[in-house]
Amino acid sequence: MSAEIICVGTEMLLGDILNSNAQYLAQQLAQLGIPHYYQTVVGDNPARLKEVIEIAASRVQILIFTGGLGPTPDDLTCETIADFFGVPLIERADIVEDITEKFAQRGRVMSANNRKQALIPQGAEILPNPTGTAPGIIWQPRPGLTIFTFPGVPSEMYRMWKETAVPFLKSQGWGQEIIYSRSLRFWGIGESALAEKVAPYFNLTNPTVAPYAGKGEVRLRVSAKATDAATAEALITPIEKQLIEIAGLDYYGADDDTLASVVGNLLRSAGETLSVAESCTGGGLGQMLTEISGSSDYFWGGVISYDNSVKVGLLGVNPEDLEKFGAVSATVAEQMAIGVKNRLSTTWGLSITGIAGPTGGTQAKPVGLVYVGLAGPDNEVISFEHRLGTIRGRSVIRYVSANAALDNLRRQMLKSF
Amino acid sequence: MSAEIICVGTEMLLGDILNSNAQYLAQQLAQLGIPHYYQTVVGDNPARLKEVIEIAASRVQILIFTGGLGPTPDDLTCETIADFFGVPLIERADIVEDITEKFAQRGRVMSANNRKQALIPQGAEILPNPTGTAPGIIWQPRPGLTIFTFPGVPSEMYRMWKETAVPFLKSQGWGQEIIYSRSLRFWGIGESALAEKVAPYFNLTNPTVAPYAGKGEVRLRVSAKATDAATAEALITPIEKQLIEIAGLDYYGADDDTLASVVGNLLRSAGETLSVAESCTGGGLGQMLTEISGSSDYFWGGVISYDNSVKVGLLGVNPEDLEKFGAVSATVAEQMAIGVKNRLSTTWGLSITGIAGPTGGTQAKPVGLVYVGLAGPDNEVISFEHRLGTIRGRSVIRYVSANAALDNLRRQMLKSF
Repeated sequence: MSAEIICVGTEMLLGDILNSNAQYLAQQLAQLGIPHYYQTVVGDNPARLKEVIEIAASRVQILIFTGGLGPTPDDLTCETIADFFGVPLIERADIVEDITEKFAQRGRVMSANNRKQALIPQGAEILPNPTGTAPGIIWQPRPGLTIFTFPGVPSEMYRMWKETAVPFLKSQGWGQEIIYSRSLRFWGIGESALAEKVAPYFNLTNPTVAPYAGKGEVRLRVSAKATDAATAEALITPIEKQLIEIAGLDYYGADDDTLASVVGNLLRSAGETLSVAESCTGGGLGQMLTEISGSSDYFWGGVISYDNSVKVGLLGVNPEDLEKFGAVSATVAEQMAIGVKNRLSTTWGLSITGIAGPTGGTQAKPVGLVYVGLAGPDNEVISFEHRLGTIRGRSVIRYVSANAALDNLRRQMLKSF
Repeated sequence: MSAEIICVGTEMLLGDILNSNAQYLAQQLAQLGIPHYYQTVVGDNPARLKEVIEIAASRVQILIFTGGLGPTPDDLTCETIADFFGVPLIERADIVEDITEKFAQRGRVMSANNRKQALIPQGAEILPNPTGTAPGIIWQPRPGLTIFTFPGVPSEMYRMWKETAVPFLKSQGWGQEIIYSRSLRFWGIGESALAEKVAPYFNLTNPTVAPYAGKGEVRLRVSAKATDAATAEALITPIEKQLIEIAGLDYYGADDDTLASVVGNLLRSAGETLSVAESCTGGGLGQMLTEISGSSDYFWGGVISYDNSVKVGLLGVNPEDLEKFGAVSATVAEQMAIGVKNRLSTTWGLSITGIAGPTGGTQAKPVGLVYVGLAGPDNEVISFEHRLGTIRGRSVIRYVSANAALDNLRRQMLKSF
């Protein structure tokens, strides 16, 4: 029993988009232990799509389609599949109603085009799409062959996969042996340095341990194969504990944790509050903190002091120090931090000033030089210098700067406890 | 005459890596005007790879393989292709020499494994790999069929493609025609509504026009086939003009333009400045504006007024109005906008307050309700109500809110001109 992934869309043949859906589905199938040996990409062309269906249906039992469920005339996946199996499309009143309601929520009227999305092959089940207008289908056009369709929009597909497709697959007895993984996250240590520290663990077979490098962070993926989550958990937990012990403060969280969420939890449990003053990140630190629902419990806001006049006017940075040390300096970072803490009356004030590039660097202050200022509960102020290098580009420098600031605060809070 | 991309590697079937090679090759083929209608991914398995070769060789004239040229036992692409066509592998002394030298340069000795990389099918040409050890091949195993192989390492493949494959293709008379595209960007209109307005254009054949929906925006891609860029441009320009005319203010830019860059250019040419006051976006609007290098010309900064105390204390929002109308209201949005404009002394003040969810929504003020406030050059203040719906999730609501605010400012500035 195996599956095949078929991605439909001329935009992939033109190279306009990266086929991240295939990677997502591949990972998901691997986790469920459902083998798949082929992935095919084909354009929005009924004749070629039929040819692909014919080949795939002759060699696998599960066909997973993404793309081509939209409202425009070139979205042909569903009708082409129905046509291939000689089954008529039926307009489903419940889908029309669902789409109408989704448009109404945004104060808009469903256009005639969207009505097309309510047509599904006779006998197919609806695979509901909670976040978009195009539903998918789950369909057995003949014994021993099951078809799933998903829209091409990744976020819509992910939810549909998790909420409906996975439970359906399991109900059919597929995916009984699962691969269960935990991703441990580290900040402040490089991939090779961490790999050296935990090298013996890379030889384990169940669970396995593998390193991945991300933007500024390193992850260790611990994966166990088992028939149920509890058994997998029992395999992973002791190894996880040992890895965390070895890494010390460089370990900050697991799975969906971010430095912002970890810092947020520390603040919430301490009953403390935070404000930020941002120069080179221009709001990115606040954005990261507030990406978390409920962050208003501890994050009060801040000042984006992009122009020096704002550093002086709203944060109380000393103009003479600005002149003397420059905007990118430990002194100014510290004054920004204490300034925002005092004006917003928070427990902590965290600031960032740096050179994000690509221009503005000098010999003494190169692109990637960033100062983080931190004002604490007793108005003590400290600063941290980061040299992030010139080669990673503006966007990554800004992202890493904001996380480096959060990491500075995290370590400081863990020290204070 | 068409091509097919065949990516070989079990790591793609496990979802361990994103198939960026397929996107690169797709873009390159599109630019050369060589059509390709299928992409296939298959694991490091000779039987399945042969099956894929059989299907592909029956329908196209150019087969492009990536992956499976490495030194390990699971790298089988080259020998499987040779085996399929019944041709023996020959060890090429010049490749052995080249690999030996590359190892010597890094102070290492070639391992026995690497010798395998010197085996290529009898009659094939070497496709040199300047930066890695695995060479590719260019081979006509039979008349009317040309095979290219590349290693899976993207950087190695890019150079081999550009330096050897493209000149070879052109020398064969392929790729004389290029495809040249422009992507037109629209905000404030849905995909189906825009599609209805420009429906006749979807029937054009050169250039072609196709719609794509992104997060909150719609794009129309205009693609022309021609022997040179100037001819393509001449085909695209009149259609582009007509589409822009039909769309009116819903059109905001092309290709790499963003709403932040378009607004930034308007501000720069008007010699005007901007500050922001952000509640639910928490810094995301400032982050977007400052992602652009040089934005300090017109963006001065702002206030992240996540907590109501900051709206009152730093922006001067009237506490009674906060109480009476709520933080998410037109009144508060307007006071935030004028407050930040006055405190930062900028030409424009732009504010956002809304309910990003997933919690915090009510019947009267549901998740996705967002107010944008805008204070202008003469201190006039207006506001805009956006209902972004509850289903798209916190992150998308925040992203769309920030762009909606930029779009409100853009339209206002274009009106003022």
